[in-house]
Amino acid sequence: MMITSNKLKSYKKDYGYSYTIGAYPTIELLKHQTQAVQSVYLHSKLEQPILIEEICGRDIPVLYNDRIFERVGVNDNSYVLGVFNKYEGHLSLHKPHIVLVNPSDMGNLGTIIRTAIGFGYRDLAIITPAADYWNPKTIRSSMGALFQLNIQCFSSFEAYQAAFPAHELFPFVLGGNCRYNFETCPKITLFSLIFGNEASGLDNRFLSLGTPVQIPQTAQVDSLNLAVAVAIGAYHFAVRNGLV
Amino acid sequence: MMITSNKLKSYKKDYGYSYTIGAYPTIELLKHQTQAVQSVYLHSKLEQPILIEEICGRDIPVLYNDRIFERVGVNDNSYVLGVFNKYEGHLSLHKPHIVLVNPSDMGNLGTIIRTAIGFGYRDLAIITPAADYWNPKTIRSSMGALFQLNIQCFSSFEAYQAAFPAHELFPFVLGGNCRYNFETCPKITLFSLIFGNEASGLDNRFLSLGTPVQIPQTAQVDSLNLAVAVAIGAYHFAVRNGLV
Repeated sequence: MMITSNKLKSYKKDYGYSYTIGAYPTIELLKHQTQAVQSVYLHSKLEQPILIEEICGRDIPVLYNDRIFERVGVNDNSYVLGVFNKYEGHLSLHKPHIVLVNPSDMGNLGTIIRTAIGFGYRDLAIITPAADYWNPKTIRSSMGALFQLNIQCFSSFEAYQAAFPAHELFPFVLGGNCRYNFETCPKITLFSLIFGNEASGLDNRFLSLGTPVQIPQTAQVDSLNLAVAVAIGAYHFAVRNGLV
Repeated sequence: MMITSNKLKSYKKDYGYSYTIGAYPTIELLKHQTQAVQSVYLHSKLEQPILIEEICGRDIPVLYNDRIFERVGVNDNSYVLGVFNKYEGHLSLHKPHIVLVNPSDMGNLGTIIRTAIGFGYRDLAIITPAADYWNPKTIRSSMGALFQLNIQCFSSFEAYQAAFPAHELFPFVLGGNCRYNFETCPKITLFSLIFGNEASGLDNRFLSLGTPVQIPQTAQVDSLNLAVAVAIGAYHFAVRNGLV
């Protein structure tokens, strides 16, 4: 259902639609998820609106309406706003996954999505409760890479595991008796790299699941930033297994 | 000079002092830069204030004042606030450096500082103009790791280079004819890992400086997040050279 201009307002999680704010994420949306786009709004201050109009072509309505930007809460001089329907993602049975257990920060989540695409991953599982990946902040922080990623939510890790029993599991943990030396990253086709919440990490049951992995780090920090830990793990497995 | 309670207000870059917001960064400040601490404010809602009081000991004034938290602009239920004098950092001539050219995002900067300490680096050069590393947002995003890092600003890359002529330079670039294969990270004692601005990266003159390095990434993203690129680079050099 197309939302009329006068109904658009500040994003809420329970909406069936969301926004891309700024030219870059909107172009990514238009390129990769055309079927989900409802409309694109342009601000009168946008230079060279023709560039966006051309990408939208005949099928996607392009509307000029400065007040929409205020109403939606855009406060950073962005002059392009995409409105799109949320859509369901389904992870591939045959490709490696990144699995985030209860990620809570939208900025981290967006950065992880961008990193995943940058290193050749196409599938992200999110165990809920979790930060809202449809929030415009997450989308922006992903630089629009979100529209290239299959993202699927699961209500528990067990539900994820049941759906993908063939994936070999690599939980990234702190401490514990890790059987695995990170430097000897395996050659393997079907794997799941699993990362815990920013504050609490993965709980102890993950220490006996699959092959726990610890990223070398000094005792001078409590832990690494979540997006940094995912980047290091995803990078190694990607390079070793030809994803990038 | 000790700032009296009624003078404290929302942080500004030109102040000679700054704040740690929250227990964790304040404890890191107290542990690593005791001499810089002016005072610590506790909110009446703080549970177990004795823990902070004990760390402060006799020499650091501990004050109870709920209104300070509002005045300074704390809006996240943090009940501990440190006030400290900014101090000068001086990079070691004999240790590896991370060099950030015009970083613009305080969140990235804080994450990079935390990552640096996590991988055994002690020295960070910042080429100005740059995001303010003393801003409480940067400090928080660093989880207080900032207080363990020597940070020194330079007005140009040339000024940095003149001060540390013995460091071998590794600019992290996109494109160009990188002579260097990232997977063959060298064993080396004195090196500088150089990273550009979030939006613009390093300009072309860095392509002919030292040994340009490119992190493998897919064509599906424009670039990696800056904190992610630094993490991947810093991690490899750290592991190969025994920093972590």
